[in-house]
Order: sequence, then structure tokens, then C-alpha cells
Amino acid sequence: MKKNSKPNGVGPKETARLEVFSDGVFAIAITLLVLELIQFLHPHEGESLLRFYLHHWEPFLAFLIGFLTILVCWINHHHVFLYIIKTDSYLPWVNGFVLFMITFTPLPTAILAEYLGTEGKFAVAAFGFNYLMISIASYWLCAYAMTRSLIEQDNRKFFRFVKLTYGYSIIYTLVAFLVCFVYIPAAILMYFLLFIAFAFPKEFAERLARGRRR
Amino acid sequence: MKKNSKPNGVGPKETARLEVFSDGVFAIAITLLVLELIQFLHPHEGESLLRFYLHHWEPFLAFLIGFLTILVCWINHHHVFLYIIKTDSYLPWVNGFVLFMITFTPLPTAILAEYLGTEGKFAVAAFGFNYLMISIASYWLCAYAMTRSLIEQDNRKFFRFVKLTYGYSIIYTLVAFLVCFVYIPAAILMYFLLFIAFAFPKEFAERLARGRRR
Amino acid sequence: MKKNSKPNGVGPKETARLEVFSDGVFAIAITLLVLELIQFLHPHEGESLLRFYLHHWEPFLAFLIGFLTILVCWINHHHVFLYIIKTDSYLPWVNGFVLFMITFTPLPTAILAEYLGTEGKFAVAAFGFNYLMISIASYWLCAYAMTRSLIEQDNRKFFRFVKLTYGYSIIYTLVAFLVCFVYIPAAILMYFLLFIAFAFPKEFAERLARGRRR
Amino acid sequence: MKKNSKPNGVGPKETARLEVFSDGVFAIAITLLVLELIQFLHPHEGESLLRFYLHHWEPFLAFLIGFLTILVCWINHHHVFLYIIKTDSYLPWVNGFVLFMITFTPLPTAILAEYLGTEGKFAVAAFGFNYLMISIASYWLCAYAMTRSLIEQDNRKFFRFVKLTYGYSIIYTLVAFLVCFVYIPAAILMYFLLFIAFAFPKEFAERLARGRRR
Repeated sequence: MKKNSKPNGVGPKETARLEVFSDGVFAIAITLLVLELIQFLHPHEGESLLRFYLHHWEPFLAFLIGFLTILVCWINHHHVFLYIIKTDSYLPWVNGFVLFMITFTPLPTAILAEYLGTEGKFAVAAFGFNYLMISIASYWLCAYAMTRSLIEQDNRKFFRFVKLTYGYSIIYTLVAFLVCFVYIPAAILMYFLLFIAFAFPKEFAERLARGRRR
Repeated sequence: MKKNSKPNGVGPKETARLEVFSDGVFAIAITLLVLELIQFLHPHEGESLLRFYLHHWEPFLAFLIGFLTILVCWINHHHVFLYIIKTDSYLPWVNGFVLFMITFTPLPTAILAEYLGTEGKFAVAAFGFNYLMISIASYWLCAYAMTRSLIEQDNRKFFRFVKLTYGYSIIYTLVAFLVCFVYIPAAILMYFLLFIAFAFPKEFAERLARGRRR
Repeated sequence: MKKNSKPNGVGPKETARLEVFSDGVFAIAITLLVLELIQFLHPHEGESLLRFYLHHWEPFLAFLIGFLTILVCWINHHHVFLYIIKTDSYLPWVNGFVLFMITFTPLPTAILAEYLGTEGKFAVAAFGFNYLMISIASYWLCAYAMTRSLIEQDNRKFFRFVKLTYGYSIIYTLVAFLVCFVYIPAAILMYFLLFIAFAFPKEFAERLARGRRR
Repeated sequence: MKKNSKPNGVGPKETARLEVFSDGVFAIAITLLVLELIQFLHPHEGESLLRFYLHHWEPFLAFLIGFLTILVCWINHHHVFLYIIKTDSYLPWVNGFVLFMITFTPLPTAILAEYLGTEGKFAVAAFGFNYLMISIASYWLCAYAMTRSLIEQDNRKFFRFVKLTYGYSIIYTLVAFLVCFVYIPAAILMYFLLFIAFAFPKEFAERLARGRRR
């Protein structure tokens, strides 16, 4: 069809509105986390303010973890969309799966805040399940963009390694999820290492690329 | 009037700020849905976390449906605005009707989450009424853009079919709304098919265009 | 100082980030209104869904009014920023006053939803006070942009009339605010006419311009 | 690595998506503040509306302070990013620290609203601690951008003074934080002066620059 070929052939800015929409979702999800913190404040109005801070550190820890999780996801999303320059009818759906997990993240964060003291195992596992789903969604996004040639020609070789990092993270987060039910500190250590690796997605992919070439 | 003709004659980017504002509304509405999920968490603090998940699947289903609804609407809005390249004084109002229905969507989603088990018929009908209104709003947007020639000349022929899909969806969602009061599973099947058709608005319109030419 | 003259001399896009930030505030304020609607849903869980809709129409009316208010403000903000092409150190503050009133708007909306039945006079007056403040903020924004020559040269003559519409609205909303305490229906009629006038800010200013020339 | 050098070498727009994401976070945080105001409305439903306003001025003051705080931060963030034209793998993290403090700000605002009457000292100190952290984050952002040469060459000299203002604010907010525990009115005066200085970050930096040259 020639008639509607034009709107979809504008070039590098094709994914612009998809990115603006995604940025909005990331920005809102990361900011909504504070509502959970404020809600915690209310039932304890009788308590002294200083005591409140000392006795309820779990929501603050959950807030920090939730914030870092969504920030890492945004950094990775931003990195992946540096290479994706075209879009098609399915990309918003694959990207929608990533966004679904991001909008969902405040729930495991709230679970962490409320159940860390009483049911730590399940609270961490709920967050771990979230990480597993995010890994699957990220891998799928990269695999889809690769297969459908939505990547700039020059970057295809490197993008293969970007995709690979999310492939590894699926296996890694699956193992970490299972470890949650066995020994929580080991799972937390695993998630900590996961954070560090994906905090710098470009460097991670570059290291993989260098390793393969040797 | 010549004086203010300039700001409105910038060309293809005329609808830019309208789209950014709309994207913001879509992004916020889709992310606010999780607040309903978190709110459900609170009154059941005494319950075990695993049991909570098993016994309260309705809010999760409602969250998924609400998310998919707004995502489908965003994809369709994005598709329609690929063709709308000009704006006038009324377009923000017609578009405002679409946005009104989007900001409203978290309410039927919350109704679905809370009343699915007890008053399923009305809960689904409330959502169905929402779909009917969204169809009317979308059709109106397309019809208005068409009449006022806000569409690029080359795309006018194809856009006629885009408009037609929303025309059909008005009749379809009206029937589905009435079916809600008769037999819920049939209504749900109808909404499922509606989702699939509008998940890919371009392909839907292309199929219609091909059908007509024969 | 020459060193930092460059970042501020980029040209027509100087207000870009101010507009994106403002769009975000408008989009969030307009979407947050639904939270009030959902919150109303909760305490009445025992009630039948249909009855709930019939007996609690005030929050729905308040939602509609709040939505239209913020949409009208966005349309006017968008219209004013078509002419403002430069920025300076004070513009974000003058614009900040407008945004302050926008972020504040969900409060009078919530007051309207909860007190319309019991204390209608004060509920409408609270909203009316909001309109007065928005008028002052809008006029100040236009007057500031005019004085500091942030308007494109060609549009200065017409912009004078845009500014004038907000000048009139200050007097108008002040009178309407006082009428609230005397006879509510008259105040509501006045606000209705205000809505219609500012729904199309460009046409309103054009009519003023035509009237003056005669 | 040459393969992925392209996406990162687009030029002046390199920080575009970082700014959009940041704008989103600022816009949401500033708009969420009203939810706290609305929440205050609910438990007092029995009270007269006028009395409610007269007796509960603290949440309104806290709303104003929270709004001004985030607006000042946005203005400063916007000013700093006029000079930052490049990005690297660490900048989103340094900027993330600023955003973390912004998303956190609604909490001290809520604390101020609820505890100003009963535990004023701690309520102000909680806000003061927030200011100290924001100062550190802002200084770090500038220092990082300076060291990594993410600043346009022509602006480097002036940006040194921008950075210096945040360096001073760290010491200033640290002193003000300590003053909170001694004499609240003095601390409030200090924060008031801080506001005025950073309301116009460009003028503040220019004054410093002029002072040094003499």
C-alpha cells in the first residue's frame, strides 16, 4: 500500500512518540513509589517522628529498591532504543510488555515494604519474579527488533550482544528466584550483582563483545 | 486575520504539543491502575501473602484488562495522529473527549476489580459502556479531522478506512453492551475479538480497504 | 556576559522544555481527578452498583467540571505559548504561578464532589476562587511576556488582545465569585459562559480585535 | 568500539530523552503534592468547610513549600542542562540521585503538613535534611559534568560558577539543618534566603562570576 507508507517512513524519529509515552510511564511509576511511603506515615500519627523513622526502615529500603529497579530499567530501555530506529505494528505490543512490568513494579515494592519483616521469603520472591518477567520482556524486545530489522545496519553486530545480556539475565533471574525459597541472603547478593551489571548496559554488552572476539 | 496566522502555520509539527499532552494522559492513566492493586493489598495485611495472591485474582485480571485497554487506545491514537498533520481550534476539544474517556477508564477498571465476583453483569457492562464511548470519541475524532481537512492529502483515501473501523466499532460495542445483560461469556468473547481487531489498527484498516476495492 | 549567552539564544525552541514540563503538570492534574472518583467507590462496597451510580452523581459532575477546567486551561496555555518564543529567568516563575493553580485544582474539585449536596454555596465559591486565581495568573503571564518582549514581533498586536481577554476574566470571575454567596444558579450560569468564551481563546481574542478596530 | 559510537554521537540532542524523563519526574512529583491536601479533607467530613480552611492551614503551607521546592529544583535542573550537551554511561546515575531526592520530596512535605503543629522542630529538620541532600546531588551533577567534559567548551568558564553555587549551598544547608535543632525561626529565615538565591540560578552564578573577577 502506497497511501499510508509516508507516515511510517519519516526516518529516525519514527519511534519518537513511543519513547515519549514510555518515558512517561517510567517517570510516573518511579514517582508513585513515594505514595506508599506517605501512606505508611498515616496510621502512626500518634508516634513520635524520630521513632517512626527508626522503627519503620523497611518502607524506606523498599522505596530505594523500587526506585533503583525502575531507574535501571529506564537506562536499559533508553540504551536499547538508541539502536532501534524503526517501528512496526507489533513493536508497541512488545514494548507494551516491558511497560506492563514497569507499571506493575510498585506492587512488589509495596509487598516488600509491608511483608519484609513478617514474610521475607515471599516478599523477596515476589520481587524476584518481577525481575524474571522484566528480563523476558527485555529479551523479547531486543529479539523482536533484531528479527524485524528495526536496528540500524551499522549497529546490528553490537546489538546482538545487547540482546545476549538479556538472554543471560533470564537464566540468572530464574536461578535467583529459586534461590529465594532456599536462602534469602544468597538471593539478595545475586540481585545486587544483577543491578551492578545492568546499571551500565553498554559496558556490559561491550565486555561480552570483547570476550567473544578473543 | 494575518497577525496570528504564523503560529498556526508551522506545518507538520502543528499537533506536536497536543500529542505530548495526550501521551502524558495515556501514560498516567495506564500507570495509575497499579494504585488500585496496591490499595487491595492493605486491608488484608493479616492474611498470608501466598493466600492473598490465590484468593484475590480479580484485581489482577482487572489490572491486565485496564492496561490492555489503555494500550490499545494509545496505539490507535498514535496511528490516527500519524495522518492528522494540522490542527484547529476545535481539534483539542474533540481529542479532549477521547482523553476524557481515557482518564475515566481507571474507574470501570476499579469497578471490575471489586464487583466482578458479586455483580459481574454490571461490572462488565460498566466496562462495555466505556468501550462504546471510546468508539464514539474515536470515530468523532476521525470524522472531524476528515471533514476539516486536517489530514495529509496523500493519506485521505486510506484514512477513510481508518475512520470506518471506528464507525463499525460503535455498532459492535453497542451490541456487545446489550449482550452483557443477557449472557456475559458471549459479551466477553465479543470484547476479546474487538481487542484483537484494534490491536493492529493499520492492518485492520488495510483489510477493509482491500475488501472494498474488490 | 557572553559565555552563557549561547544556551539562551537557540531561538524558537527556547521555551520547549518549559512547555514539556507544563504539559506534564496539566496531564497529571487532569488524570489524578479519577482517583477521587475511585476513592468514593470504596466506602460503599455494600451497596448495589447500579444504586451507587444513581445516588452519587455529584462526584461524577465534579469530575467532569474538573476535567473541563484543566482542559480549558491547557488549551489557553497552549495558545499563549504559540506566541511566546523567548524565555528569561522570571518566566518560569510567572508560568509557575499558573502551574500552581493547576496542581491545586484537584482540591476544589474534591471539595465540590463531597460538599455539593451539603454546603453547595461554599463548594462552588471554592471553585470560583480557583477561577479568579487562574485568571490573575494567566493575565500576569501574558502581561509579563508582553512587557519583556518575549513575543514574536509580528504577533505583538494580536497578543495584546489575548492579554486583554484574561484582563476581562479577572473582573468577570471576581463578580461571579461574589455572586456565589448571593444566588448559586446565577453564578453557575456565569461560569458556564466563561467556559464557552475561553474554550476557544483564539476566536475570543479575534472577536475583541475586530470590535476595537471598528 | 566503533559499532555503537553512532547513537552516542548525535550531538546537542544527546541528553534529550534524559531531560524528558527528568521533566516527567519533576512534573509528577509537583502534582502529587495535592493528593496529600485532598487526603486531609477526608477525615473531617463532618466539619464545616469554612472552619476546615481556618483550622487546617498547615497542609496548605506545606503544599506551597513543597511546590516551590520542586519548582526551584526544576528551574535549576533546567539551567544546568542548558550547559550539559553530552551524556555518558554514568550521567543517568548522577542525575538519578537528583531525581531520587525529587521523588522523595513529597514525604518531607507530608511530614511538614502533619507534624508542623506538634513536632515542628523535627518536621522542619526533615525538610532541611532533604535540602542538604538535594544540594549534594546538584553539586555532584555539576562536578561530574565538568570533570567528564560534558559541557560545551564556550560555557566551561561560566559553568564553574554554577557548580560553585551548589558547593556553597551544601555548606549553607548543613548549617541551616543544625540551626533547626536550636532555633526554628532562624532556620526558616535561612531557608527563605536560600530560596531567593536559587530561584534565579543564572543571576546567582553571574554575581559570583563578577565578584571573582574583581
